[in-house]
Amino acid sequence: MKKELKVFFKIFTTTKDAIEKFMNMLNPVIQNASDDHERLYYHHIYEEEEQRLSRLVELIPLISKFEQEKDEKDFTPTNNEFNRLLQELNLEKFGLHNFVEHLDLALFRFTDTERSTLLNELRDVSYRDYQQVKELLNEINTRFDHDYVDPHAHHDEHHDHLARPASPTVVTKSKRKKGFTVGSLL
Amino acid sequence: MKKELKVFFKIFTTTKDAIEKFMNMLNPVIQNASDDHERLYYHHIYEEEEQRLSRLVELIPLISKFEQEKDEKDFTPTNNEFNRLLQELNLEKFGLHNFVEHLDLALFRFTDTERSTLLNELRDVSYRDYQQVKELLNEINTRFDHDYVDPHAHHDEHHDHLARPASPTVVTKSKRKKGFTVGSLL
Ligand SMILES: [Fe+2]
Ligand SMILES: [Fe+2]
Repeated sequence: MKKELKVFFKIFTTTKDAIEKFMNMLNPVIQNASDDHERLYYHHIYEEEEQRLSRLVELIPLISKFEQEKDEKDFTPTNNEFNRLLQELNLEKFGLHNFVEHLDLALFRFTDTERSTLLNELRDVSYRDYQQVKELLNEINTRFDHDYVDPHAHHDEHHDHLARPASPTVVTKSKRKKGFTVGSLL
Repeated sequence: MKKELKVFFKIFTTTKDAIEKFMNMLNPVIQNASDDHERLYYHHIYEEEEQRLSRLVELIPLISKFEQEKDEKDFTPTNNEFNRLLQELNLEKFGLHNFVEHLDLALFRFTDTERSTLLNELRDVSYRDYQQVKELLNEINTRFDHDYVDPHAHHDEHHDHLARPASPTVVTKSKRKKGFTVGSLL
């Protein structure tokens, strides 16, 4: 478990940094929004990432504490603290998933080289990290066979839609859930 | 505390129902999206509400359990379970906040009478409920004076921007954070 905690620590430290870069990009866009809809749209994404940032500020030291102070014997399904940590990590798995989508949404709009290059970099790292967190949590859940049922597990199975074609500059167009088709408003 | 738990139970049961109505509205929009950007946009909001729904499915029975099985003496800052509950409630306070914004974003696009009427109803209830959850949690935090520091508290102070003018059909145009102005992309 210590090995996994090291990976979680690295991933969430990286994504914390990525949030800050993304928020810095959104700031002038919000300031200069041309109408209320646009302003709300980017401000909303900004706030969701800000909420995630606040949670990570608490979670990262907790991961660190677990890694340094706990023994392998503390990582049991009967340990409340440990279950709590797993639940927080599960929440942040979805935080990472949503972040990838925020970056994809931004990639549709910020098509200039400077911003799209940064967004694509953040997107690739975040997507890879999301996949790894998902795998690690699945593995931990299996290993401990504890009674925690992931309420989102059914959903995850369909989440290949986050994957995108080989080229890192092509915005996720394929592999989305089947059954989506044509005609409306945005 | 039992009285507050009753209110939380009612609010989160109501919002669970509201999520389902909103998801039903989004479903055909996603199915009929005219392009990938639009599809991702509504699908993203759909997923965030779906994640919230999954959390509420766990939280509502927990509130209920606390209300029925616990004594007032269990509601102390030294009770881990109680602190846990407060932290979950705090997360769902932000879930409600984000829901109000999802509804506001939808109101910019779904301007037909049928959908805008439903969206406005959901919006008004959710906004009122968000305010009440915020007040109750502030009050509880003060009363117990426990060591839980709300990482979002600084942010909430600026959240009057959710308020909107008297008319329930006018989409939130005023009271937004000062300093936002003109020019860009959506
Ligand atoms: Fe989002
Ligand atoms: Fe959102």
